Amino acid sequence: MTAAASRDDSALANGLAARLAIRSGAYDGPTSGLARGYVQGNLAILPKALAGDFLRFCQLNPKPCPLIGMSAPGDWRVPELGADLDIRTDICRYRVWRDGALVGEPTDLNEVWRDDLVSFVLGCSFSFEEALMADGLEIRHITLDCTVPMFRTNIATAAAGPFHGPMVVSMRPMKPADAIRAIQITTRFPAVHGAPVHIGKPELIGIQDLGKPDYGDAVPVRDDEIPVFWACGVTPQSVIATMRPEFSITHYPGCMLVTDRRNTEFAVL
Amino acid sequence: MTAAASRDDSALANGLAARLAIRSGAYDGPTSGLARGYVQGNLAILPKALAGDFLRFCQLNPKPCPLIGMSAPGDWRVPELGADLDIRTDICRYRVWRDGALVGEPTDLNEVWRDDLVSFVLGCSFSFEEALMADGLEIRHITLDCTVPMFRTNIATAAAGPFHGPMVVSMRPMKPADAIRAIQITTRFPAVHGAPVHIGKPELIGIQDLGKPDYGDAVPVRDDEIPVFWACGVTPQSVIATMRPEFSITHYPGCMLVTDRRNTEFAVL
Repeated sequence: MTAAASRDDSALANGLAARLAIRSGAYDGPTSGLARGYVQGNLAILPKALAGDFLRFCQLNPKPCPLIGMSAPGDWRVPELGADLDIRTDICRYRVWRDGALVGEPTDLNEVWRDDLVSFVLGCSFSFEEALMADGLEIRHITLDCTVPMFRTNIATAAAGPFHGPMVVSMRPMKPADAIRAIQITTRFPAVHGAPVHIGKPELIGIQDLGKPDYGDAVPVRDDEIPVFWACGVTPQSVIATMRPEFSITHYPGCMLVTDRRNTEFAVL
Repeated sequence: MTAAASRDDSALANGLAARLAIRSGAYDGPTSGLARGYVQGNLAILPKALAGDFLRFCQLNPKPCPLIGMSAPGDWRVPELGADLDIRTDICRYRVWRDGALVGEPTDLNEVWRDDLVSFVLGCSFSFEEALMADGLEIRHITLDCTVPMFRTNIATAAAGPFHGPMVVSMRPMKPADAIRAIQITTRFPAVHGAPVHIGKPELIGIQDLGKPDYGDAVPVRDDEIPVFWACGVTPQSVIATMRPEFSITHYPGCMLVTDRRNTEFAVL
């Protein structure tokens, strides 16, 4: 990817500006660090025939699938996340799936849009990471400029219709006192995964080797640190991939939907 | 000790009733489980000459020394904790110390009271344990009907005048998800030690063997559990013992001051 606009560009400093730059093609890179303070979301688009079950899946599994926005069938707008938002054009790059196979990675959905598609936007860890860093905590994968390590666990999600499968978690190593602080901070943000689901002993949730994540990059866990595990927005993508719907669309990894909502709006306290 | 009244006696169901039974001698046992819902406190009484430094010590170290009440010099009342409260008579049994040596364990302070004594009442873990159990969490030492295991750590308290020394912590083993929930719950109660100070790896805070507590009883930590450590009200007693004041008084272990304040009043949320 190339980007005519850079992530530090003041023209990308809010959600709308970032979306307009993405829509026009002026920006087409990863969205981490873009429009600081604004909520970014994971995208899942499914045909209406599957949308009811998927909505129920999200409601049954709010930690991995915190639903922050949803469209009407066939409607490309998600007004609760941005008055001007067009889900077909406002993400840098998408992934299009047919019967479980990746069939394209377009930069807009104009060619593949259907009148029965329902868009789901799920909260993302960028929001709580911003809150953790604002408190002075180190986020290891950000320090190392790599992708957060993610693991499939033996924690089952609650099934809804054809949607079922294991929870995926992201891991951030922290000193114990920082881990306690991180639990306090992320508890305030249930709409963006909320508090961790596990802490310490990875084997208790079926993770054999912290050095071999299922997604993302391994990061070192020092002797004076413990691993802290949050429910991860890759869970619904993993669940959708497993059930191989006839058609679905997700965002390209790292290219999230930037919204007009502020992270602080999602704090419950 | 013998008790004419039992802990389940409805006559002991609130703070005032419990204190009156203790004052009259009708009840003289441990106060755990007494007057459920009401705050109990640790007691430290020091001469006025030391009280200023000790107050500063409490303010510098709010997690081990959460001050919930304090008397004027020579005054046996602590009205913020109970209109009728008389610190000389309202605890079942006291410990009197001279130059660091235990010189008596009277059931009232009428014989030893001095006009320069200042009473400090510090929050106690009974309050947050009540909140944890109300949420369905198991407290191991309560299940086993023994005393919570406590450990001296390598975490230094902030010194004030002659008061200094290591923090003492209490330990409760929990499954990781329960530990996360316990952090959330106890965060609401900063006046009774608040959130844990450490979690997992005991060696990081200077604890070599969880099976050998410095105070209280060892409890098993199962393979699917991690130890969770809270700052402990024994810290100020340990610090006072170390500096060997010419005169001091504490409560007899397990015999706390029962107050008129409700645990729920101390929740910050």
